[in-house]
Amino acid sequence: MSFAIIQAKKSLIFEDVPVGAVIVDDNGYIIAKGYNQIQKKQNPLMHAELIAIQKALKKSKYLNNFTLYVTLEPCPMCAGAIILSRIGKVVYGASDPKAGAVDSLFNLLNDKRLNHRCKVISGILAEESSNLLKSFFHKLRLSKKRNES
Amino acid sequence: MSFAIIQAKKSLIFEDVPVGAVIVDDNGYIIAKGYNQIQKKQNPLMHAELIAIQKALKKSKYLNNFTLYVTLEPCPMCAGAIILSRIGKVVYGASDPKAGAVDSLFNLLNDKRLNHRCKVISGILAEESSNLLKSFFHKLRLSKKRNES
Repeated sequence: MSFAIIQAKKSLIFEDVPVGAVIVDDNGYIIAKGYNQIQKKQNPLMHAELIAIQKALKKSKYLNNFTLYVTLEPCPMCAGAIILSRIGKVVYGASDPKAGAVDSLFNLLNDKRLNHRCKVISGILAEESSNLLKSFFHKLRLSKKRNES
Repeated sequence: MSFAIIQAKKSLIFEDVPVGAVIVDDNGYIIAKGYNQIQKKQNPLMHAELIAIQKALKKSKYLNNFTLYVTLEPCPMCAGAIILSRIGKVVYGASDPKAGAVDSLFNLLNDKRLNHRCKVISGILAEESSNLLKSFFHKLRLSKKRNES
């Protein structure tokens, strides 16, 4: 997860919400990385997980034997991409009460009606992941206030 | 929707499940098109809607003033992408009882907890859209039987 946090910090360069993801194989090798690039690419779909999954899919059509580490609970789009790419295990840091689709708002990764389910571990380095986000939004609010005054 | 069906038929060239999508502006002009390319690209995320949305996002960061026409009810990933890109209206053909995330299994496009909701019209050219899918799966089953015998 600490590698995912390093990725998250890269988001900050373009003032993107700091979220990072890595995909790791059975031997612990990182096969794909991603960080939020919504501002950088001016594209609201450029979530860390989706970027990492797309990269991993260039190496394997399905990702059953891989683990996705991501600093924030995946949203519906990313959870859907996790199901479609059949990722075996997801480890996430901070919960997302506004859009989390793994535990918070939906339980997409373990819905018996869908054709894939995966192991989920939550709360790993949650405080570090969450503090990165809090600090980002705090600075954003300060900057907005400055611009308004 | 008939343009989305034309797109869906393109999927068949590479033996992909026939689903097609178009995104249309306020004046009725098509600004992006997509068809299922999972087999063609050997990538399980290459859904018609996601391809069309990614193309449309090259023209506009958000898609509030656009309508997505798609021959099959969107899955969780595509519904999530619709929310993130803030598409104003979604018109779909056939329902998807196995993975539909608009009406069948989930109601992602009109969930008050998420930060975007869009107008939805369903059942437009549903029979044509559905017949394309049925015919595809029928041929697939016949072909499998032939290979097994």
